[in-house]
Amino acid sequence: MKNFTSRMIINVIAIPLIILMIRYGQWPLVIFVTLVSFLGQYEFYRLLRLKGIEPVTIMGIAAGLIWNLTVYFFPDLIGPVLMFCIATLALTVLFLPVEGATLRISTTFWGLIYIPVLFSTVVLLRQSQPEYHQGGRLVLLLFVTVWICDSLAFVFGKWLGRRKMAAHISPHKTVAGCIAGLIGAVLTVWLFRWLDWAPAMLDWKELTIFGLLVGVFGQAGDFVESVFKRDAHVKDSGTLLMGHGGVLDRFDAFFIIAPVIYAYIRLLMALS
Amino acid sequence: MKNFTSRMIINVIAIPLIILMIRYGQWPLVIFVTLVSFLGQYEFYRLLRLKGIEPVTIMGIAAGLIWNLTVYFFPDLIGPVLMFCIATLALTVLFLPVEGATLRISTTFWGLIYIPVLFSTVVLLRQSQPEYHQGGRLVLLLFVTVWICDSLAFVFGKWLGRRKMAAHISPHKTVAGCIAGLIGAVLTVWLFRWLDWAPAMLDWKELTIFGLLVGVFGQAGDFVESVFKRDAHVKDSGTLLMGHGGVLDRFDAFFIIAPVIYAYIRLLMALS
Repeated sequence: MKNFTSRMIINVIAIPLIILMIRYGQWPLVIFVTLVSFLGQYEFYRLLRLKGIEPVTIMGIAAGLIWNLTVYFFPDLIGPVLMFCIATLALTVLFLPVEGATLRISTTFWGLIYIPVLFSTVVLLRQSQPEYHQGGRLVLLLFVTVWICDSLAFVFGKWLGRRKMAAHISPHKTVAGCIAGLIGAVLTVWLFRWLDWAPAMLDWKELTIFGLLVGVFGQAGDFVESVFKRDAHVKDSGTLLMGHGGVLDRFDAFFIIAPVIYAYIRLLMALS
Repeated sequence: MKNFTSRMIINVIAIPLIILMIRYGQWPLVIFVTLVSFLGQYEFYRLLRLKGIEPVTIMGIAAGLIWNLTVYFFPDLIGPVLMFCIATLALTVLFLPVEGATLRISTTFWGLIYIPVLFSTVVLLRQSQPEYHQGGRLVLLLFVTVWICDSLAFVFGKWLGRRKMAAHISPHKTVAGCIAGLIGAVLTVWLFRWLDWAPAMLDWKELTIFGLLVGVFGQAGDFVESVFKRDAHVKDSGTLLMGHGGVLDRFDAFFIIAPVIYAYIRLLMALS
């Protein structure tokens, strides 16, 4: 119950704040994304240490910060900056003990790619539209759809679910919950359209695909993060957000679904 | 001596062929880069298996091929395609045993990033210039400078070197050899300028920096690959090219120097 109360308090503060940052976009959104990336990456490296692997934490986190700033401030140089960061970060192995260096650099990079690089697609999506507020509509739709999908999956999974989706990864997730999440995601995008909040570039068919993508890849994102936690034998990725687990736990869906939606939107833009 | 002969034969065939592909550019160069990436990635995954880690080889190599084709055929969609590939490749962990999945996915990705993604900057560099043949000059300068730097480091290291550069990583590389390589790299870019083969966009100061970058980051790239081999307790990354070690051994400098030069050229273009 204490968990439930602190969850509610955080929701009441965080959700409106996140919505505001999404609507405003620009540097407030960048700060939010950078902060989540930073904390998430830190938690991920902690999970690795629990597995007995010592990632090159400072270098990985520094590269994550540089990446997030580049995405916003020098979007035309994303490619070269990313390549340069990877190449120079690789040089870190020269200063590590040789034994185990391959694992240390691999996991450092995976923490960089999985969290800051993938999550930065939220900023890329926000900046992707010629009409700036339309980017806000895209990101808002993404966040609200993920939240509703998650909540419905949680509630219906508790009430109706018996059959587990993948018990070895996530013992509480049920098939019924996942289906409820998927349906909820599609209903959310339709609701946005009905309220006239949906991004103008998407017709109803494209919106429905948006909802289905969130329902499938968002929930898959939850499972991916669960694998990393289970592999490290912990239940929560961190304790920063009381009752919410860690930052990774809160945003796990986005690390997978945000890049997928970003690719989907860019593909539609290229085809139109 | 047998090694030396087979080395010479390969050099006599391979060097002119590579130069031709660089000059022509387009799909012949893409095929060359894709082939090197594929073989290199395969060798890298073999090194991992020698360390007792089972990367998701097929997925990693498939992503590498998709990446190389995207860089050439859909350069405007590189960002979204990369994000989509990473996100969907991450889903592989859902089908692996949980124990060890983090390591397996991390190393699979590192093989993808370190080899195809970094090496694809050769194609990006080739395509980067408004005047197409100028891109060929850039890539040719890069390759020839690396080759001369490597050869001088090898020869002078053997003749003059006593003091080791980093004996725990590469027992044969000496300080004298590395300095000879660095000087050789700078002399090569000056020679190119004198012969009027240098890319038109670079003045002599920028060319000198080009040479210094190759001398430093190219040789650092050799050491990086040596760390991965030593970590796996092998001497050569593979046996495909008799006497040359593996493909990784032959192209190790490029995985680091090509992205650095690409970033350097893009930076100069952005500033001009």
